[in-house]
Parts: sequence; structure tokens; C-alpha cells
Amino acid sequence: MSPSNDSTPAFEGWVAKDQSAADGNMQWDKFEPKPFEETDIEMAISHCGVCGSDIHTLRSGWGPTNYPLVVGHEIIGRVTRVGSAVKDLKAGDRVGVGAQSQSCLDCKDCKHDQEPHCSKMVQTYNQPYATGGKSQGGYAKSWRGPASFAIPIPDGLSSEMAAPLLCGGVTVYNPLVTYGAGPGKRVGVVGLGGLGHFAVLFAKALKCDKVVAISRSASKKDDALKMGADEYIATADNPDWATKNASSFDILISTVSGSFPIGDYLNLLDTNGTFVQVGAPEDPLPSFPAFALIFKSLKIAGSLIGGRKIIKEMLDLAAKEKLEAWLEVRPMKDANEVVQDMVNGKARYRYVLQN
Amino acid sequence: MSPSNDSTPAFEGWVAKDQSAADGNMQWDKFEPKPFEETDIEMAISHCGVCGSDIHTLRSGWGPTNYPLVVGHEIIGRVTRVGSAVKDLKAGDRVGVGAQSQSCLDCKDCKHDQEPHCSKMVQTYNQPYATGGKSQGGYAKSWRGPASFAIPIPDGLSSEMAAPLLCGGVTVYNPLVTYGAGPGKRVGVVGLGGLGHFAVLFAKALKCDKVVAISRSASKKDDALKMGADEYIATADNPDWATKNASSFDILISTVSGSFPIGDYLNLLDTNGTFVQVGAPEDPLPSFPAFALIFKSLKIAGSLIGGRKIIKEMLDLAAKEKLEAWLEVRPMKDANEVVQDMVNGKARYRYVLQN
Repeated sequence: MSPSNDSTPAFEGWVAKDQSAADGNMQWDKFEPKPFEETDIEMAISHCGVCGSDIHTLRSGWGPTNYPLVVGHEIIGRVTRVGSAVKDLKAGDRVGVGAQSQSCLDCKDCKHDQEPHCSKMVQTYNQPYATGGKSQGGYAKSWRGPASFAIPIPDGLSSEMAAPLLCGGVTVYNPLVTYGAGPGKRVGVVGLGGLGHFAVLFAKALKCDKVVAISRSASKKDDALKMGADEYIATADNPDWATKNASSFDILISTVSGSFPIGDYLNLLDTNGTFVQVGAPEDPLPSFPAFALIFKSLKIAGSLIGGRKIIKEMLDLAAKEKLEAWLEVRPMKDANEVVQDMVNGKARYRYVLQN
Repeated sequence: MSPSNDSTPAFEGWVAKDQSAADGNMQWDKFEPKPFEETDIEMAISHCGVCGSDIHTLRSGWGPTNYPLVVGHEIIGRVTRVGSAVKDLKAGDRVGVGAQSQSCLDCKDCKHDQEPHCSKMVQTYNQPYATGGKSQGGYAKSWRGPASFAIPIPDGLSSEMAAPLLCGGVTVYNPLVTYGAGPGKRVGVVGLGGLGHFAVLFAKALKCDKVVAISRSASKKDDALKMGADEYIATADNPDWATKNASSFDILISTVSGSFPIGDYLNLLDTNGTFVQVGAPEDPLPSFPAFALIFKSLKIAGSLIGGRKIIKEMLDLAAKEKLEAWLEVRPMKDANEVVQDMVNGKARYRYVLQN
């Protein structure tokens, strides 16, 4: 054990030991955090959001997971230990860590606030840190990692509200602002799960002219309208939905995967419109003929979480607009049950674990 | 014949009477222009560029062509007749008409300088005008049509140089500026035909950091470098071209169609990069998995010609930068031979017919 680790109390959390973890078999146990460096902090975790990525990783859905592993990358807590090289944080500060916890901070991407695209990007769990050790997430009592990715949470935003924004929120907020969501713009949100619900909330918070939730069935219509959506399209109930709503959107945020009718979605876009695919499904996305793009000068974009600058901007907006995410706070001790509920599609629309 | 047509001399040009026109069988004949309206002009054509679209249309490659038809939509000439409602043009003015010659001028697209996307967009040949008559192109002695799409040609730009810019030029200039070509940006041009050669020239004129021509064989390497390309990639000669040049472009302008390796091209793009497909091939474009877009936050865009504002901007830049298109001026009387040379891939890189 390195000298800098001497004072470390044991780290405890929900440890995934094999793929069965995704079936409700995470085990509360001690685990080894990364070696402490003077650029690190530790925090006492108060909340951790449950993200679809957690499930994918628990079951090795994106390739073999490096077990034993603690997942969770929507982490909020109070700083308990601060490395001597850390300037901006002090013990007691409330901070959040999202899906990324390290990058080189020196390359072109990092210098342009595009840290998620840094070639040395380290995800908050299941990856080796550049300087040793493996990243471990937030289904735990404590977290240790680089201070540079621990983002102060603005006053006026509760910890339970802030947690799921750190991955789920920014995954949709980033493309919304990148592709111009705001007054005068019409936004469609395809799929009303955790990500889709944030897309509706943020498109409204950004004062878009029209925000429409698009889902297969009508089952989430009432929810969508309560979230603030101006309209709801249930595609299964309206065979002519694509032609009826042709050319009526500037931005479509797609949170779905699998075999969906991307040609029909492109048809919904007006001149210069953008279809953005977010999230990272286990299945490849459907292929599509690009010819349709030419006649309306459309674009199809992909988007992956967001850098620290955009996360801060989003947290500030959420605090200012008193954004009300739809979430259910559950005790950390029930993490296995919560994961099962998530797998079974019961989330309305996001779970947050609380210590 | 309407009274306003009384003074019209017979219109004469290269008339396509059936699909054999594409095989060198256009016939020099009289043809009927649209009825003259007081918002129209007529011009004595001095030059008309030869565009791939002409060939597609001559052979009914985009669906049945409405024969008899005169093609050509890179038209330059002097105004010879001006309708009483036309305010901005007078006899003797040098003007150009590109691939579009009418739109409503009143819808959202028109008001945002996106006339090519107006639902009442009329192409310069082979389409009915809103107020009657069929659009006829510029392989002819004279042209008649709406003054609103006759664009003054700036002094300092020769007519032969201006002609092919009106469709070929703006088709690549528009996406270059839309997606940020300029200092600090690295541009790749896929395919070095008429459009590709303009993309190289304009990317240089826009002062991009690096402009690279990408083609299957090395046969056009010398030409590309003479045009100003900084590098040339011959994909057939370099099996590792895609990995070797990974993440080294901000914008790719694809002027090719058919079965090309779009996944490899996406691999060339750096974070937030854009792949733009231009032109309108007869074949559908290849499909591609969209998953690759997510990890680098890439986008795939389509682009279709350009509105009047962007055409004027392009012409001004071409005049200011003394843009030297590579073209061959051929007599109008040889139009059938020129079309054959175009079909046979002999253009280096654009033909312009001259009366």
C-alpha cells in the first residue's frame, strides 16, 4: 500500500463480481479505489443516479467488464479529503462527478472543452486511470478521483436533482444547445425514457417554441404533457404520423435504439434540421440511406455526454429555472432492487440512490 | 400567343427530344420559352456551363424527363429585355442564372435565404413555372425567366469563370461555409471531378489550414496539387489510408456516389467533424451505421446547391481571390460532343459552352 493511502478508511460499495450483478447480484463489500494522488479528492457520497450505462456495464453489454467493479457515474457528495495540489476545492464542498473523471487537460479537445473526446478520457468506472488504478463508481459510501472532474454543485439545486443531470441530463442538454435549441426552434424528442424526459425538460427550459414527445404508444402521454411537452405523438396509433408532421421540426433528439424508422424521422425535419442520436445502445443503430439528407440539407449527428463547461452551464440553468426532474429517490441499500426495476422499465423517469 | 410575346424572336437551342439526347443526339431547333411576364427578363446567353445534372436529365436518370427540353443551368449573358415590374436590372446588365430560377420569395425558407428548399422551388429546366410554361435551360441563344433569380456578375470575374460557379461552385461553397471552413480548419475533398475541384479551390480561397484531395487512384494527384491541395490521398494505393489519416479532418466534402466506404471516411473526422454529401447521384448513397457518429460527436450532412445570398457571396469571393477554375471553353455548336466528353469522364474539370 502506498504511503498516501495510509489514512484511507476502507472503501465500501456495491461490488459487481460477474455478469450476474445485472440480475440483482451486486454485493456490498470493500473495494480498492485508485491510489490517492495529490491531484485527487475524496468525497462522502450522498447520492448517485442510476443510469442505463450502469446496467450495460454490469452485464458486460459493451464488451467484457473488468470485475470486480462498482458502477454509478452520477455521483454527488461532500469533499472529505483534498490532495495538496488541488486548488479549487476544499473539504465540505458539495461536488458532482459525471461519466468522465479524467482526461489529459492538454490536448486540442481538452482545450476546446471537449474532454469527452480526449484520447486519454477515463470513464468514471471500469477504466484504468492514466496514473494507475481502476476507476470505481458511485454505488458506494465514498469516491476517490481527480479533483479536475469534480464539479461544484450550485446552491439552489438539490443533490438528488443534480445527480442524474451529470450523465443523463448533459447527454441531451449538450446536443440541444449545440444544435441551436432556443426561442424559435421546434424540438422533437424520440423516446420518453430517462434521457427523453430530460430532453423535454431542457428543451422547455431553453424556451423552444414547440417541444413534442414522440413515442410508440400513448402510455406516457399524460406524463409528457405534465413535463411540459406541447404535444405528444404516439406513432403506433397514428399510421400517418410521419407525413402528418412532415417538415415541422428543427431538432430531433433520438434516445432510442434498435430498429426504428429513421427515414420517417428525417421526414419530420424542416430545412437544415438536425437528427441527433444520443446515448450508446448495445445494438448498432439502424442504417439509413443518406440521400434524404440532401434535399432538405439535413444532418444526422451523434453526441456523447458533455465536457465540464457544458455540465456547469447546464447545472446553472437547472438551478435558475428550478428544473424538476422526475425521479425516485431510493436508499443505497436497495441498489440491487433498483437496478432490477430499471432493467424492467419501471423508472419514471430516473432513480437516484441515497446514502 | 399572348401580346407580351409578340416581340419575342424565336428561341433556339439544343433541344433534347428523347433519351437519346444523352448519347449525342440533342437537336438544334426552335423551342418555346415560358410566357413572358412583367417580372421576367430575357438575356442573350454568352456562356453556359455543362453540369452532371444536365446529363442525368437528358437521359431521364432522375425519372422521366419532360421532353422536348433544353438543359443547362449555369447560364451567363447580357439582359436584352426587362419586364415592367423588374426594378433591379436593366438591358445590358451581365447576369447569371443557376440551377434554380423561381421560388415563392415569401415562405420561411425564402425569407431565410434558403430558396432551394422553398416548396415552390422551380429548377431552371424541366419544371413547370408557377404561372405557366416550362423551364428551359441555357444550351441556347437566349433565356427567359424570373428576374429575381438572375444574379448580377461582379466585375473582375469573367463570364466563363462565373458560369460553372452558379451550380457546381455553390454546391460545394455552401456546405464549406455552413460547416465552418476557414482558418484553423482541415478540409478533405472526396472525389476530384467538377465538384471536387471547386471544393479544393474554395477551401483554399477560404484560407483553410489544410486541404486534401482524396481519390481512388493517383491519376489526378498532380492536378490536385496544382489546384492548391496541400496533400493527396490515393486510397487504392494505400490500404491503410483510413487509419493513417484518422481524426485529421474537420470537414469532408463528398462528391462521390455509389458504394464508397463511408465508415472509413467517418474515421478521418476529428471531434465534432462533419461529413457532407453534395450533388445528387442517380444511385442511392450507401447506408452506414450511425453508431460511429456518437463517439466523436460527428455529423453527416446533405447539402443542395445554395440560395441567392450565398451565390452572391461566392461570386464576390471568387472575384476578390481571382479564383481560377479549371475549365475548357467549347463552342455552343459542339454541345453534343461536349456532352459525350463529359459522359466519358474527360472533363478537366468543367466544360463551358460559349455562343
